[in-house]
Amino acid sequence: MQYMPVTESMFLVAETRDQPMHVGGLQLFVPREGQTSEELAEEMAASFAAATDVAPMFLKRPATPAQFAGYTAWSFDDEIDPDYHLRRIILPRPGAVRDLLRYVSLNHGALLDRRRPMWEMHIIEGLADGRVALYTKVHHSVVDGVTALRLLQRTLSTDPADRTGTAVWDARLKRRRPPVERESKGLLASITGAASQVLDIADQVVGLAPAAAKIAVAGVTDKDYFAPMQQAPQTILNVPIGSARRFAAQDWPVERLRAVGKAQKMTLNDVVVAMCAGAMRTYLSDHDALPDESLVAVMPVSLHADGDDDGNAVTAISVRMATDLEDAGERLAAIKASTTAAKKAVRGLRPLQALALGAATIWPLAFNTVPGFVEYTPTGFNLMISNVPGPEEQLYWNGARLDGCYPVSIPMEGLAMNITVTTVSGKANFGIIGARAELPRLQRILDHLETTLTELEALPPA
Amino acid sequence: MQYMPVTESMFLVAETRDQPMHVGGLQLFVPREGQTSEELAEEMAASFAAATDVAPMFLKRPATPAQFAGYTAWSFDDEIDPDYHLRRIILPRPGAVRDLLRYVSLNHGALLDRRRPMWEMHIIEGLADGRVALYTKVHHSVVDGVTALRLLQRTLSTDPADRTGTAVWDARLKRRRPPVERESKGLLASITGAASQVLDIADQVVGLAPAAAKIAVAGVTDKDYFAPMQQAPQTILNVPIGSARRFAAQDWPVERLRAVGKAQKMTLNDVVVAMCAGAMRTYLSDHDALPDESLVAVMPVSLHADGDDDGNAVTAISVRMATDLEDAGERLAAIKASTTAAKKAVRGLRPLQALALGAATIWPLAFNTVPGFVEYTPTGFNLMISNVPGPEEQLYWNGARLDGCYPVSIPMEGLAMNITVTTVSGKANFGIIGARAELPRLQRILDHLETTLTELEALPPA
Repeated sequence: MQYMPVTESMFLVAETRDQPMHVGGLQLFVPREGQTSEELAEEMAASFAAATDVAPMFLKRPATPAQFAGYTAWSFDDEIDPDYHLRRIILPRPGAVRDLLRYVSLNHGALLDRRRPMWEMHIIEGLADGRVALYTKVHHSVVDGVTALRLLQRTLSTDPADRTGTAVWDARLKRRRPPVERESKGLLASITGAASQVLDIADQVVGLAPAAAKIAVAGVTDKDYFAPMQQAPQTILNVPIGSARRFAAQDWPVERLRAVGKAQKMTLNDVVVAMCAGAMRTYLSDHDALPDESLVAVMPVSLHADGDDDGNAVTAISVRMATDLEDAGERLAAIKASTTAAKKAVRGLRPLQALALGAATIWPLAFNTVPGFVEYTPTGFNLMISNVPGPEEQLYWNGARLDGCYPVSIPMEGLAMNITVTTVSGKANFGIIGARAELPRLQRILDHLETTLTELEALPPA
Repeated sequence: MQYMPVTESMFLVAETRDQPMHVGGLQLFVPREGQTSEELAEEMAASFAAATDVAPMFLKRPATPAQFAGYTAWSFDDEIDPDYHLRRIILPRPGAVRDLLRYVSLNHGALLDRRRPMWEMHIIEGLADGRVALYTKVHHSVVDGVTALRLLQRTLSTDPADRTGTAVWDARLKRRRPPVERESKGLLASITGAASQVLDIADQVVGLAPAAAKIAVAGVTDKDYFAPMQQAPQTILNVPIGSARRFAAQDWPVERLRAVGKAQKMTLNDVVVAMCAGAMRTYLSDHDALPDESLVAVMPVSLHADGDDDGNAVTAISVRMATDLEDAGERLAAIKASTTAAKKAVRGLRPLQALALGAATIWPLAFNTVPGFVEYTPTGFNLMISNVPGPEEQLYWNGARLDGCYPVSIPMEGLAMNITVTTVSGKANFGIIGARAELPRLQRILDHLETTLTELEALPPA
């Protein structure tokens, strides 16, 4: 038995049948020269099945799985049931990427069993383009999305000749390969966790919020700054949700985003927000659901980084997405002003204040599973957008090239969509997950992202 | 909106993440002469996709899906999302029946979304033997297992030249084909429902039980009769369960079972119980978990049938399975005495009393999701065994022969295993569903069933 801190148990407590709290990653691999997709899938399956020395993270489960219990401890199984955790499937014809995304959508809506270690790995064949996909699903109480992506990357090598590829749960990995860089606890956990530790009120994370808001708001005067506790417009993104999901994913060359950032004197994060803003404006307009006021996004940002790369999440800021502005240039300028002001406010705070600001920004999430809360409470923000930097080098699993690595995050009650971006090997991989019934035709956002990026590229330099 | 009777809403109320309350059916089809499995799957998919006139049963969902609500009404969607409800998949190599059962196991543990009509249909290819499988999953509040199997059969034809095959949800079916024979509400619903209606206490089904038990027990004196409210041994079948499932299925020629029944002067139901008793004795012994006292099974029986076929469920009896007896002949005699006594007791009752007896027999189920109930309350019975008679003729879907039709039922808290048998086209199809973590190597029961049947065949005639 191992003590379970509130920063982990809260994801078990917050979980409902309509709001599964697991994160996922979808990786695509190109078989190495002369290898068929069938051979690669078989090689993976054999290698994974041989990894019977399982790391503790993949053996742990809540000691008291029933929903009424307090989740105060983890227990550890001696072994795993490979037939349960490791799944194989072949997609139906035509094996389009769309078929793959549909498979992930349908599986991401299903709860994990709490009476066994809470993760699954799916090896997926049948893509017409010959690639093989790995879809990994881990409960957020065990690992956050950022760490999950990094763990997956640890099974990969920069050397195409390397043949030591194994499973993510292989206990030997930790010994054989360098530890995961900048191991993070993710947005919710790092913010509430760090703030709790500092203030020594681990059991009262939520109670912290009003006080924190005062600290934070008191230090803020900038008119471009969207402070926590303000009100965002009510939209179709901010409704109670069902359990079914819709997942869309696509990648863009990081170089295209960086070029826009350079021309417009913006960070990569700002460019991501601007792409999302243009895409969401079009998506909501198509559904006659664009609010008069701007959407408000919450983004994790680093307290330290000043450069192009905003680094690891240690606090969260609210950003006006300027979706009320039709002109792409005006929208871009407004977004830049909003993120700059928010980051200036954060940098002007001492660390404790910054952590408290983050907690204040996201605290309403804690109440979203309370019946009726979402319907009857003003919305503080409309969606979360995260940008998670990964390694720049090309990565391989036993010589099979990693060709895409898409985060699959968590829609919540009142936050029906989540956009997470990860930059790996020169690609910005967008993963968009939404509640299925509430957000029809979600995949069109991919086209809107491309359209917006093209618009941004056409703007005169700042 | 449509009023939802308690006999339907109780399956929504009783549902937890560890106890999904949907029933399933697994059908296997042999492509017609000259047709590949791929062609049959494509033909099914195209035909099902074309069935856009959807019967009301497949459009309804709870009007208030959240778990805290009272479930007093159904609402009806205008259309279905075919990408969600109709799923296609190809099994991984080698495409053994084992791979198919594993797919069903993994999918049967996942909850249905309550914000859309609560059913799924999976078209499954990739079996090495060339057959195509259909796995159908419907919430028990919408339809019980018996009716679900009959609905599926309604899409089939006894004429191999018939090419009017369509989807089970096709609204034209009801108009085109005869109504489902002997439409039943299943064990729990028919017993509690009928008793409730008679006594006009629809909201107090559970409160009925103690009174019912008095009525029933008062009329019973036979020493072979296992009356409700007695205590069954505690076994590994009677524990809290997780959500993961294990499904095993196999069929036997009905003729083999009938021959045993004829030789031993027993009903087909008795032979099914005897097969299960021998198999469970071996299975539990292998796990060092055979109790000293006999297992007790609950079975639906008809009030009217006297012949070989016990017909439709209208009450439930408890049967001592005589798993404490090693000798197959002695075990068979004890089972026969127990079922005969139980049925005699039922026949001696007036209809209301019989219904009340059924309610008393199964009433503890109503409490099994109460935290701690399963651990601290004596077990009234150890498992449910149902035998559902179907049509004797060979059935076809657009000329593809139905080669197996296995029920996939519901394990519950405290009842980790369920065995349901359906006889169709001369085969007795056994479907065994169990809680995955709690019942390892469940598929061995299939071998034990064959071994037991062989033993029964070798016994001297009664």
